[in-house]
Amino acid sequence: MPADPKTLLADLTEFLRIPSQSGSPELRGEIRRAAEWVAQRLRRAGIEHVEILETAGHPVVYGDWLHRPGAPTALIYGHYDVQPPEPLELWTSPPYEPQVRGGKLFARGASDDKGGVAAAIAGIEACLKESAPPINLRFCIEGEEEIGSPNFGSMLAREKRRLAADLVLSADGVEWSERQGFLLLGLRGGCSAEIRVSGPDRDLHSGLYGGAVLNPLEALARLLTSLRHADGRIAIEGFYDDVATATPEDRAEYARVPHDDAAYARDIGVPALHGEPGYSTVERCWIRPTVEINGMWGGHTGPGPKTIIPAQAHAKLTFRLVPNQDPARVYALLERHIARHAPAAVKVEVKSGGFGALPYAIARDHPAVRAAAEVLREVYQVAPYEGRVGGSVPVLAAFEQVLGASAVDFGAATMDANFHSPNEFVYLSSLERAARCFELMVRRGAGLLP
Amino acid sequence: MPADPKTLLADLTEFLRIPSQSGSPELRGEIRRAAEWVAQRLRRAGIEHVEILETAGHPVVYGDWLHRPGAPTALIYGHYDVQPPEPLELWTSPPYEPQVRGGKLFARGASDDKGGVAAAIAGIEACLKESAPPINLRFCIEGEEEIGSPNFGSMLAREKRRLAADLVLSADGVEWSERQGFLLLGLRGGCSAEIRVSGPDRDLHSGLYGGAVLNPLEALARLLTSLRHADGRIAIEGFYDDVATATPEDRAEYARVPHDDAAYARDIGVPALHGEPGYSTVERCWIRPTVEINGMWGGHTGPGPKTIIPAQAHAKLTFRLVPNQDPARVYALLERHIARHAPAAVKVEVKSGGFGALPYAIARDHPAVRAAAEVLREVYQVAPYEGRVGGSVPVLAAFEQVLGASAVDFGAATMDANFHSPNEFVYLSSLERAARCFELMVRRGAGLLP
Repeated sequence: MPADPKTLLADLTEFLRIPSQSGSPELRGEIRRAAEWVAQRLRRAGIEHVEILETAGHPVVYGDWLHRPGAPTALIYGHYDVQPPEPLELWTSPPYEPQVRGGKLFARGASDDKGGVAAAIAGIEACLKESAPPINLRFCIEGEEEIGSPNFGSMLAREKRRLAADLVLSADGVEWSERQGFLLLGLRGGCSAEIRVSGPDRDLHSGLYGGAVLNPLEALARLLTSLRHADGRIAIEGFYDDVATATPEDRAEYARVPHDDAAYARDIGVPALHGEPGYSTVERCWIRPTVEINGMWGGHTGPGPKTIIPAQAHAKLTFRLVPNQDPARVYALLERHIARHAPAAVKVEVKSGGFGALPYAIARDHPAVRAAAEVLREVYQVAPYEGRVGGSVPVLAAFEQVLGASAVDFGAATMDANFHSPNEFVYLSSLERAARCFELMVRRGAGLLP
Repeated sequence: MPADPKTLLADLTEFLRIPSQSGSPELRGEIRRAAEWVAQRLRRAGIEHVEILETAGHPVVYGDWLHRPGAPTALIYGHYDVQPPEPLELWTSPPYEPQVRGGKLFARGASDDKGGVAAAIAGIEACLKESAPPINLRFCIEGEEEIGSPNFGSMLAREKRRLAADLVLSADGVEWSERQGFLLLGLRGGCSAEIRVSGPDRDLHSGLYGGAVLNPLEALARLLTSLRHADGRIAIEGFYDDVATATPEDRAEYARVPHDDAAYARDIGVPALHGEPGYSTVERCWIRPTVEINGMWGGHTGPGPKTIIPAQAHAKLTFRLVPNQDPARVYALLERHIARHAPAAVKVEVKSGGFGALPYAIARDHPAVRAAAEVLREVYQVAPYEGRVGGSVPVLAAFEQVLGASAVDFGAATMDANFHSPNEFVYLSSLERAARCFELMVRRGAGLLP
């Protein structure tokens, strides 16, 4: 019997009232309160053993239900922290006073990820109430996702025996739309770098010195240009060596996903799309790697003219990588490329930019994927789209690396749900569907049983 | 008989006490006081007719001595305004309390350009005291040089009959060193532009969208790279069309100027010099045009990673141009180049950057140049170096355009005199030499008499 929608809404509303912003040190107490809320909620759901695991940062809520000795184990992942709500003046109703309007529940965290966590727990509670599921369950709900999970990797390594699982069921997922599920088959990883070009030891008068020295901004522009051929392919030697080739089946599935280049370009406001030749827009974002300049600066950036040759120029880059690229190897290839192309008339330094994530993929024919596809088809009454997401969720690769467990996810969040923006919301119908997905997935053994 | 050094020092000290910062609106009264000081000083020097000419900005001090009807006229140019003195804490003595230390007079404006103005007036006073000079004299001392002389062109056009002259004697010049004169034969002109590249209408998540759109920073880097060939030559079509070819005599004279590439590179702190093939460093700065990126910015420029594709990217450029390049034509060539190279996937806009100056040159065999060379040789007891300066002094080209008068200059300023920086100074010996140069130049008719 499905979770009761009224109870789910009441629980989530309580959860959403806690301003558990992981990036706001002054709200440490609220973070702790949210962790305790999750712990209490798990206990009420029938998870008898619940603990709050301390980390160097915010705590992780652990829980388990291990009544099937010898059977496989699924670990439910989610996060109870949220982004800051600013700018407050753009919210129609206050971010921490949840409000239902037109079938949507508005509050910071409604979609990302308190809605997912509340739905997962409610669904599993419904499953447990009806009968003991055929697999063991663990929960791992963290509190630092919105600040990049800085302590998650070390926690995972320390607690790897306690967290041992055969599959991760992530509650931090998305739907395709309110009416159609989405089966996540992969994410891009990435790495980042900062480049600093140093020329003269001070800004020079561009009249007196112009023409005699290499301008650091020009040198940087030339280096950045050298990273990609004009046609859109990346020009770093060896960059594509490890890129997994998509199968014809994968490409056919990606082609099935509704996508309209003209509407997409219009939505983001660009005059035309642009990318690697030979791939569709969807493929360029999902299965092809890229390098993006996130920021660049140097010299005079204020109003009016200032006729200088600047002493330094800077850029920040991130790579998005796909299986089987290794972020550390790509960073090393970048260093080699820059060293080879750096002109002698300036000093060029490369350093890591503090972002790193392994690419992640799960096979389309993985039993848990097929089980999830079946659940999604049943709950939405239409087959889910199967595809990837171009962003990175470092924890999924970490689970795979440390626990050897792949992940599938169910989510209550739709793409239009204003994650990280004012007026974040979740569809009430999506919450119920997500809860139902978790319920059915767990009851059926999550594809882990023969 | 030369000007009395004590009187010159006392006068200049009084002049330097006035904080006539043209860029500081709150000091308007001080600017006016400085203009009146110059007017009074001219009257005392024997210039009977003196007027303060109003402009839309700070006034111009005009004076004339026209006792040689039918004879040619020299117009003495200089400026009484100064740069702001900040940062104050780096001054050894306060900027507006002139102090002599070790043969140098320290104060804001000591070299640029109150020293030059005071020396010119003192030298001409000495000349007038001894006997009536063979040419007529006019003075035009402006108060907006340090803010780019925004009202000078229109004043010149309006007052062209009153300012009519056959030669400009500029008091805003430089020495080669305390012991050697410098004969200025040319300056670079220039023009400036801002480039804005617009991509998506908002910053995009570089994971979700990376690979599908052209990154505006990358597009800008590519456009900037396209402006110059890798070997240092500018790649804008038609850019070199109007560049005057240096004569073998000119090049031989530039080669005579003391210059050491290794010491020059060391002084500005670059690992190596870099410029257009086929020209020396001196020639690259004096007689060859360049384009310099003065500033560039876009996207995330703060600490840490922010994984975006920025909505916009910006750059500021200045060209330095040589005879016979026309700033307006070069700006149009840039526009055409950018239009041809701008990719369809972004919007690229070019606008003027607010800086424009015609290149300036005077022939080595111009009679006034030869007369000035003779004066410099006599005063310094060694022949001056003859050369150009890579910077721009827009008023000299304006005098030539409007009055048809070329310019020669004498200055008390040495290259090491901290113009625009803390602890600006002038050598006392340089002041006396500059005064003597003006005295002799005027007495001998400035090369204007047959």
